[in-house]
Amino acid sequence: MNGAQALIRTLYNCGIEVCFTNPGTSEMHFVAALDDVPQVKGVLALFEGVVTGAADGYGRIAGKPAATLLHLGSGLGNGVANLHNAKRAFTPIVNIVGDHATYHTQYDPPLASDIASIARAVSGWTRSATNTVNLGNDVLDAVNASYGPPGTVASLILPADTSWNDGAEPLGGWSRPSPNFIEADAIDQAAKALASSRSNALLLGSNALTKANLVLAKRISALTGAKLLCETFPAKLERGGSIPGVERLGYLAEFMELQLSGVDNLIVIGAKAPVSFFAYPGKQSYLVPETCSLIEVVPPGLPTQQSLEALLDSINSSRSPENGLLGNPSKGPELPSPTQISGDLNAELFAQVIGATLPEGAIISDESNTSGLFVASATVNCPEHTVLTLTGGAIGQGLPVGVGAAMAAPDRPVLCLESDGSSMYTIQSLWTQAREGLNVTNIILNNGSYAVLNMELNRVGAQEPGPAAKRMLDISDPDINFVALGQSMGIPSVRVDRAEALVKEIGKAFSEPGPHLIETMVPSII
Amino acid sequence: MNGAQALIRTLYNCGIEVCFTNPGTSEMHFVAALDDVPQVKGVLALFEGVVTGAADGYGRIAGKPAATLLHLGSGLGNGVANLHNAKRAFTPIVNIVGDHATYHTQYDPPLASDIASIARAVSGWTRSATNTVNLGNDVLDAVNASYGPPGTVASLILPADTSWNDGAEPLGGWSRPSPNFIEADAIDQAAKALASSRSNALLLGSNALTKANLVLAKRISALTGAKLLCETFPAKLERGGSIPGVERLGYLAEFMELQLSGVDNLIVIGAKAPVSFFAYPGKQSYLVPETCSLIEVVPPGLPTQQSLEALLDSINSSRSPENGLLGNPSKGPELPSPTQISGDLNAELFAQVIGATLPEGAIISDESNTSGLFVASATVNCPEHTVLTLTGGAIGQGLPVGVGAAMAAPDRPVLCLESDGSSMYTIQSLWTQAREGLNVTNIILNNGSYAVLNMELNRVGAQEPGPAAKRMLDISDPDINFVALGQSMGIPSVRVDRAEALVKEIGKAFSEPGPHLIETMVPSII
Repeated sequence: MNGAQALIRTLYNCGIEVCFTNPGTSEMHFVAALDDVPQVKGVLALFEGVVTGAADGYGRIAGKPAATLLHLGSGLGNGVANLHNAKRAFTPIVNIVGDHATYHTQYDPPLASDIASIARAVSGWTRSATNTVNLGNDVLDAVNASYGPPGTVASLILPADTSWNDGAEPLGGWSRPSPNFIEADAIDQAAKALASSRSNALLLGSNALTKANLVLAKRISALTGAKLLCETFPAKLERGGSIPGVERLGYLAEFMELQLSGVDNLIVIGAKAPVSFFAYPGKQSYLVPETCSLIEVVPPGLPTQQSLEALLDSINSSRSPENGLLGNPSKGPELPSPTQISGDLNAELFAQVIGATLPEGAIISDESNTSGLFVASATVNCPEHTVLTLTGGAIGQGLPVGVGAAMAAPDRPVLCLESDGSSMYTIQSLWTQAREGLNVTNIILNNGSYAVLNMELNRVGAQEPGPAAKRMLDISDPDINFVALGQSMGIPSVRVDRAEALVKEIGKAFSEPGPHLIETMVPSII
Repeated sequence: MNGAQALIRTLYNCGIEVCFTNPGTSEMHFVAALDDVPQVKGVLALFEGVVTGAADGYGRIAGKPAATLLHLGSGLGNGVANLHNAKRAFTPIVNIVGDHATYHTQYDPPLASDIASIARAVSGWTRSATNTVNLGNDVLDAVNASYGPPGTVASLILPADTSWNDGAEPLGGWSRPSPNFIEADAIDQAAKALASSRSNALLLGSNALTKANLVLAKRISALTGAKLLCETFPAKLERGGSIPGVERLGYLAEFMELQLSGVDNLIVIGAKAPVSFFAYPGKQSYLVPETCSLIEVVPPGLPTQQSLEALLDSINSSRSPENGLLGNPSKGPELPSPTQISGDLNAELFAQVIGATLPEGAIISDESNTSGLFVASATVNCPEHTVLTLTGGAIGQGLPVGVGAAMAAPDRPVLCLESDGSSMYTIQSLWTQAREGLNVTNIILNNGSYAVLNMELNRVGAQEPGPAAKRMLDISDPDINFVALGQSMGIPSVRVDRAEALVKEIGKAFSEPGPHLIETMVPSII
């Protein structure tokens, strides 16, 4: 058996069922071996940023890694931005990067490059598999490394001869890790802090934002008065329905300061101490107030459930089942009926439409940036749904994450809320959606602008922008026609500028199988 | 004066007139400062691979660097593939990568990443400009490093506070380096080899492929019988008209072996010893025949003119002006008249149309891969033109290089010959072409396939592909509609499947200002 065959078989033995690919010559034995292990489905993308973003979306929803297949350092480079986001999301990914044959690199052929250095910048684990006989073990190590905890990008560099040489054996006997994490001292400290003041906050992140963990957190909150906060850009936030709500920290440091103001103890569970996304001249980077104690209970990406349970125990709550769900009494106003919404679209009206139409079980891949400002509050009362956000700030994530989420959960409706500027980094995602017939509704928010940068230009205190500067933030010359763009890659696409049309098109998109694109003309709020 | 203002002013003082950008928050002071130095034109792209590829195309044609502006490690990552190609082309680029403020990185905010490691993988020079007062010097060093020789990517990492702090001074007094290179021993050795046998070859690369240098090489060839060869993927090859022709080494190792067979001495000037692009099981990587002596006269990227002159001198040629141009007697058959060409398009007919219609002074950005196989021979007798090719093998280069070439030479017609699969990596190039009104004719060769990989799958000796493998090389499900794609980004676009229609549309595209796209249905030759 050659290396590639054993590799894919071992991936399957470790529970991996999907490999997102954009292969080249050095990956041809891997590609050929896909037919030997049909349980691992190859999914082609036309650009590597789609491959890596899809693997991120898949991992967030499936809770297990997808594999990737990339072509040398340049293919990896194209995938860097979304690997960065995935690493920040603690998403398990087995990132396979083909390389020249081991003996070929010495001649410095045109595509040779320093793959390992690029890989290390976006991976928690990197290894070059230089020996076919050891390849099964390399794969096991990569899979285990991807699970962590914390979950991470495990990059396995695969020289072509390691793939094509014979003598490999697939490995089995793998079992999924079931990690625990608990730090008793930190829990004691948190419990004491919660007893000492009613002006506390729990800041939750990474895997603390599942329904089960939010129920635990909500009970702690109810017993102690502690405010429930979550990180600004959660990898996966379960919300709506009977899931207890949690207030997201704002993107703007000014807003975050308000949210943290007056907090005596900030108890951090699976998140990091709040910092400003960017630095601004003369403003604080570190946003925990000076008068606030920071108590770090679980580092980001490590398991949080045991700590939440222990914390609840230690503040003497009963954990009887009937005390389980507390509901979400502090939720927002009632959702409007879809038929009541009318008018020329703006950001508020857009959010109302989303709130009024979001189906049960939906997955929102949210890269709506400024145009989506009002969506979170407008969807508080929606049925249960999951939100995936821009964890690492590298834009171009929303559409590929939608691809991966739909692959992981074919029966759930996926809604990509996508800004025009951000969409263009990985617009090739639409093609893979069409090819695989994925149930994705892509809403492109077209305001002809990198709107967030118009705001940031002012916030960083740069001089008044002249025409040259403004032109770097404007993307309306020429206007991008997203309907033509969607159609060019085989996706039924329409443009709407009225709320009632958006209601109708969303309804249609959710009721028909396969992907749809709705270009939505929402003027910039900036 | 703040850092950003001094930086851009210093760039201008060093002759830099264009900055290709895709900025983010940490680059806002740079963007604002563009209005202070209007001589440096900011050119926005919607994706960083377009930024870096455009800078490559610009540098190849202008012979001087453009600047780039990228956003942190993820923006740089998106630009890696075309920086790789640029580095392999020895193109001077001042690659500016914004970073968080120096004091902000310690908090590990979401976008923090190891920029320097990624930059070093694709740069000949990398520095982080951590002090505003030194920034002028950093810029001078970066510009000088970009010129080399060899020309290279000089990456200047620019923390946000280095940009926004005051106290910077622009530097002037820069003068363009005029490097020489000559290695007398190697020239002696080459001259002796040329005297000892008539079965020799000169292998030319990098800057040896200008008209002036090809004239020198042709005279050496005429005096010694040495065959003139050039590297497989030249950064910039001047050809046609009265420029002496040179035979390009084939992409296929089998073909290269034939070309080098029987050569006693291979004299390498500005190129590398020929190696196989990829490794293949059981086949040679290093392709210089065992019986052939390799004489390396000028390493790739170093100046070649002095060595060619010295070599010509030492074989006792007269260098009197009247002995200048030797013409190109061994050129191919006469060009057909455009009106004679008719029929359903195929790769041969396509090449004939290009040969029959190519205007004087055209720049061809060639990423036509398998579909363009016959173009080189069909254009031998065309008027003088310049060909830019895929130096580093990282696909997605053709369209962005076309952007940069057209910026550098607004009065020359630019023709992008672009494969369907390759085009999709950096398809956002079309938008920048439309915005800047660039005179680029984009011909997309649509065969619905990664055709080269169908060939490579077989060549690497992989097993017979099954349906899963075939699906990874097929991009016809769904078919991409390049007319809709071009129109979506503001480019007049048509589809042709007949040779006479292609003649007509090319004529129209070259006669009208601004970009055009012609989707050309050419069945795969594989």
